[in-house]
Amino acid sequence: MAVARNPFSPRPVKSRRGGPAKAPLSREVIVAAALDLLRREGLEGMSLRQVAAALDTGAATLYAYVDDLLELQTLVLDRALAGVETGGRPGAPWKARLRDVLVSYFHVLAQSPGLATLAMRTVAAGPNTLRVLEALLSLLEEAGVDPGTAAWAVDLLLLWITGSAVEQSLRQGGRDPLGFVAQVIATVGSERFPRIHAARDELISGSGFERFAWGLDVFLSGILQSPRTPARPPRAGRRGARPAR
Amino acid sequence: MAVARNPFSPRPVKSRRGGPAKAPLSREVIVAAALDLLRREGLEGMSLRQVAAALDTGAATLYAYVDDLLELQTLVLDRALAGVETGGRPGAPWKARLRDVLVSYFHVLAQSPGLATLAMRTVAAGPNTLRVLEALLSLLEEAGVDPGTAAWAVDLLLLWITGSAVEQSLRQGGRDPLGFVAQVIATVGSERFPRIHAARDELISGSGFERFAWGLDVFLSGILQSPRTPARPPRAGRRGARPAR
Repeated sequence: MAVARNPFSPRPVKSRRGGPAKAPLSREVIVAAALDLLRREGLEGMSLRQVAAALDTGAATLYAYVDDLLELQTLVLDRALAGVETGGRPGAPWKARLRDVLVSYFHVLAQSPGLATLAMRTVAAGPNTLRVLEALLSLLEEAGVDPGTAAWAVDLLLLWITGSAVEQSLRQGGRDPLGFVAQVIATVGSERFPRIHAARDELISGSGFERFAWGLDVFLSGILQSPRTPARPPRAGRRGARPAR
Repeated sequence: MAVARNPFSPRPVKSRRGGPAKAPLSREVIVAAALDLLRREGLEGMSLRQVAAALDTGAATLYAYVDDLLELQTLVLDRALAGVETGGRPGAPWKARLRDVLVSYFHVLAQSPGLATLAMRTVAAGPNTLRVLEALLSLLEEAGVDPGTAAWAVDLLLLWITGSAVEQSLRQGGRDPLGFVAQVIATVGSERFPRIHAARDELISGSGFERFAWGLDVFLSGILQSPRTPARPPRAGRRGARPAR
């Protein structure tokens, strides 16, 4: 399997367009148009043909700027992640700032089903993805998580948030898939499914935010309890404290 | 928003087909044909029109059996989950049996990108989904997790596994999206992204199964550390021990 070229490295292309009628093409312009299409039409609406049409050109012209649809999707995802806030409230504890980054990431993706689904099936690794990754690694370091554990933990955290965003974005789509699920669970028989019956209220309880807050507690305590590197000799106040640098 | 009818409740329809040329239609036959299409053609290939064509009938005929595509998708997902093994190895510890159920669920979904994506956007609540849910609740009970916590924990576990299956199924698609990511991460500068630079080897280390095993440790220790109900007075050997019933 050939290793794909890094789509974020610059590629010199001189637009042959000119004159006042059309703005000159560039990767920037193409990615912006594609992101706009994705938000309005979903993932299937963002084909190279449709992006080209939106820019009043042909798909063949786009190939001078992007290799293929997968490369365009990668660029579009990273561009969308420019909206993720990683600055953080100064002085807030690391956990609050970590939650802020994840909530911001969630909201950016959950805005549209197309974007959330794209994030689930694409790895971006562009400047905005790297900025989010660096911020999460930094916050986990503050939490006292060793680098090797943090490196795997970010993957787990982002997969969880991305999956939650996919679910959320689809539920906003107008039809409530939980409507009949709640009905089914409420009426499950205690003989065939005794534990579902016993937990029938809890299974559908809680707002999305309550579930998110609890899920974050689960992740963080689990991550702090599951160091990947061999345990170092315990040091007073190590866990949760800012490590010396 | 109207609550959707439970698609798993029986619906009496008498097929008007007869004679030797065509097998009589039924929900069973339609769902089997749709699952087959989903596996071969992906989620977009499983339209009502295409399912009807595969059955040598018209889409209008299918509406006597299913309300719409969403209902058919729900039935198809539950049907696919019939392949999840929940029986467990007798005598194995709860953690090994929990891992077995999750691994089986993962493999069923990761077989085809269409199925994994469908699981991410659909809630099934049919007999097979309920069987998996009951098994997970039972195993978490064995682990000493209280019912209210277990009820939320299963959602978290299934979201994680489903997301992992989506990623995995897409990576099997022939092109390696991590190829250029590994390149990018290996060459990230230490000034702009010092923590990514420091963790560059760990960020891409580990097999899928190693990451899964570690993720399961994270989840389970996190779940055991994050009871939702007020803590009960500690009882000797409670956590991890099989609670009295």
